Amino acid sequence: NVNFSKMENVTNLQSISYNQEKKFLKILDQLELPHKTKYLDIKNAKDAWKAVKTMQVRGAPAIAIVGCLGVAIELSTAKLSSKEELHTFFAEKMEYITTARPTAVNIHGAAKFLKEYSAKLLEDTSCNLTSMKEKIISQIETMLETDVDDNKRIGKFGAEDIVSRLNGENAKILTHCNTGELATAGYGTALGVIRHLRELGKLEKVYCTETRPYNQGARLTAYELLQEKIDGTLICDSMVSLLMKMKKIDAVVVGADRVAGNGDTANKIGTYQIAISAKYHNVPFYVAAPFSSIDLSLSNGDSIPIEFRPDDELAYINGIRIAAPGISCWNPSFDVTPAALITGGIITEKGVFKQNADEYFVFE
Amino acid sequence: NVNFSKMENVTNLQSISYNQEKKFLKILDQLELPHKTKYLDIKNAKDAWKAVKTMQVRGAPAIAIVGCLGVAIELSTAKLSSKEELHTFFAEKMEYITTARPTAVNIHGAAKFLKEYSAKLLEDTSCNLTSMKEKIISQIETMLETDVDDNKRIGKFGAEDIVSRLNGENAKILTHCNTGELATAGYGTALGVIRHLRELGKLEKVYCTETRPYNQGARLTAYELLQEKIDGTLICDSMVSLLMKMKKIDAVVVGADRVAGNGDTANKIGTYQIAISAKYHNVPFYVAAPFSSIDLSLSNGDSIPIEFRPDDELAYINGIRIAAPGISCWNPSFDVTPAALITGGIITEKGVFKQNADEYFVFE
Repeated sequence: NVNFSKMENVTNLQSISYNQEKKFLKILDQLELPHKTKYLDIKNAKDAWKAVKTMQVRGAPAIAIVGCLGVAIELSTAKLSSKEELHTFFAEKMEYITTARPTAVNIHGAAKFLKEYSAKLLEDTSCNLTSMKEKIISQIETMLETDVDDNKRIGKFGAEDIVSRLNGENAKILTHCNTGELATAGYGTALGVIRHLRELGKLEKVYCTETRPYNQGARLTAYELLQEKIDGTLICDSMVSLLMKMKKIDAVVVGADRVAGNGDTANKIGTYQIAISAKYHNVPFYVAAPFSSIDLSLSNGDSIPIEFRPDDELAYINGIRIAAPGISCWNPSFDVTPAALITGGIITEKGVFKQNADEYFVFE
Repeated sequence: NVNFSKMENVTNLQSISYNQEKKFLKILDQLELPHKTKYLDIKNAKDAWKAVKTMQVRGAPAIAIVGCLGVAIELSTAKLSSKEELHTFFAEKMEYITTARPTAVNIHGAAKFLKEYSAKLLEDTSCNLTSMKEKIISQIETMLETDVDDNKRIGKFGAEDIVSRLNGENAKILTHCNTGELATAGYGTALGVIRHLRELGKLEKVYCTETRPYNQGARLTAYELLQEKIDGTLICDSMVSLLMKMKKIDAVVVGADRVAGNGDTANKIGTYQIAISAKYHNVPFYVAAPFSSIDLSLSNGDSIPIEFRPDDELAYINGIRIAAPGISCWNPSFDVTPAALITGGIITEKGVFKQNADEYFVFE
C-alpha cells in the first residue's frame, strides 16, 4: 500500500507519477514541454510503447521504468488461467516493449532479468498463480524506487570526484541532452551530479547545449534548471568549443544509453563531438549512468546499434519546416564516444570507474 | 549595352539579377527563403539600404554589391547640372548606404574606393559631366563582374587542390553556413569550390550543417544545393564528428569573415569546432575567401572581435519560442579557428595558401 510519495517529492518536477495501490501511472508529456505541462495516462504495454516510440518519454532509465510499469499495469488486470499462460503473456509483452527504441540498453536488461524471474517463479511449485503475478508486479515497482536511490548515489560519487579536482573554486559544468528528473525515475544521472554539486555548495554555473535536433537541452534541461533554480545558460551545440576556449569549464558530465565493456559509451548525438573538444581543451569528460547501462557482453562500442530517426525530426520544429523543402537529411540519434576520450571517468552507483591500462571496468 | 547574362547564367539560382542596359536590379528576398522565392526591386539607394538593414540580403560581398548598385541606379536618372553636384550627390549616397550594416567591411572598402574614384574624375578636366556619370556607374558594374570572376577563380583553385588529394574517387565535402550565390555576387566562395568540383565531374556528395542558431545551412545552403541539383544532405552541427567517423569525408570547406595575417580565421560560430573534429579525424580543412578578406594588419586572430547576438535569435525560430521560457543564452555569432587547424589551406583568387613553418601568407 505504499504510494511512491518518496519519488514524487525528490524534486519540484514530477515526471513519472505512479500510484502503487491503484496501479495508476501518469507521465509528463515531454513533447509538450516547455510550453505545456500535460500528463498522459499509461494503462498498458501499448500505451507505454507508443509514449517511448514518439518520445513523449525519453532517457534510457525512464524508458525502462515506463515500459516495465506499463506491462505491470496490464498484467494486474489480465485474465490469466494458469502460470504458464501468465509467463507467456508477460514474456511477450516484455519483448514487445523493448522494440520501441534500439540503442538504450536498460530496458533490454530489465526485460531479460524480469523474464528470467518469471521463468523461475513458473518452476517454483510453492508459488501459485496469484502470488506469481503479485511478485512480478512488485519486482517492477521495486525497480522504480531503486532507480532514484541509485541516481542519488551517482550524484554523490560524481560530485565528490569533480570537487576533488577543483582548486577551492566552484565548478562550471557543461552538460548535453537531458539526464534529469525527466530522463530517469527521479533526481537524474548527469544532472544528479550537478544537483549534488549544488547541494555541496560547489556549483557555480551550468551550461547546457540545446541538443539538436530534438532540443532536449533547450526544452527539458533548461526547464529543469529553471525549476530547480540552478544558474544555467543555454548554448547551441556548435558553441561548445568556443565556450571551452573562452570560459574555464571544469568538467563535462553527460549520460549514457549504453556503455560497452571497455568503456566506449553510446549517448545522444553530439556527445562524441563534445568529448573530442574536451580532449582538445583539456577539460575532464565524465559519463554518469546507472550500472545497468553497462553492457559487459560488448567488448567495445562498435557493435552498439545506432538508431536513425526520420528526416522530419530534423527538418521541422513544432510542425514548422525549418529546412529547405526537398533536402534530404542524415539523422543519427546517438553516437559512440571512445573510452579514451572519457578522461574524467564513468560514474555509477557503485563508484567512479577510471580508465586504467585500456580497461575501464576492472572488478576486484 | 552588355546585359549581365554571364552573371545571370552562372547558376540556376538568381539571387542578384541586374540588367545593365535598363539599369534594373532585382534581388531574392532571403528572409522569405526557403518557403517563398520572392524578388524585390531595388530602384535607388534607399531600397538597397532597407534590404541590407532588414537582412533581405546578407553575406558581406552581396551587401557591398547590392548597396553600390542601388546607388548606381539612382545616379543613372539623377538630374545633376555639374560635376561638383554629381560628386556631392554620389559621395552622400555612398556614405548613406554604408550605415545599413556598420560592421560589414566590404561595403566600407567599396565606398572608400568609389568616392576616391569620383574625386579623381572631378579633377580630370578631360572628363565631362556625362562621361563622369557613365564612368562611375561602369566602375560599379565592373565590381559585380569582378566579384563573380574572383569567386570562379577561388572555385577553380580550391577544387583542383582537393582533386589532387583524391585517389581517383569523387569527393565527399562538408560545408558550414552559407557561402554561395546568396552570400556573394554569384557563384560563391566555399560553395564555389563545391560547384567547380561538380563541373570537373569530381563531386560525389555535399553535407551541409544546419548552422544554428540562424540556420543559414538548413535554409539557404540546402536551398542552393537543391536549385543546382547538387547531391546534398543536411545534418545538425552536432553530427559532424559522427559523420567524419562513419563516412569518408574528403575535405571540409568553409568561408571566412576575416582572416588574420597568420591565417587565424574568423567565421560563423561552429567553424572552430568543425576544425577540431577535422583535425581529430585527419580530414583536410579549407577556408575559401576573396583576398580582400585577409587583414594583414592583424598578426593573429586574438584581436578579431567576436560579435554577440541577442538571446532571442537562439531561443526562437520563426517567432516560436523553442527554449524553456526564462533560460538565459550565450550567443556568439563567430569564432576564430587557429591557423594550425586549417590543414588544407586558405583558398583565394590568387591561389591556395598553405601553412608553412607557422606562417600562412608568405609572398615571394
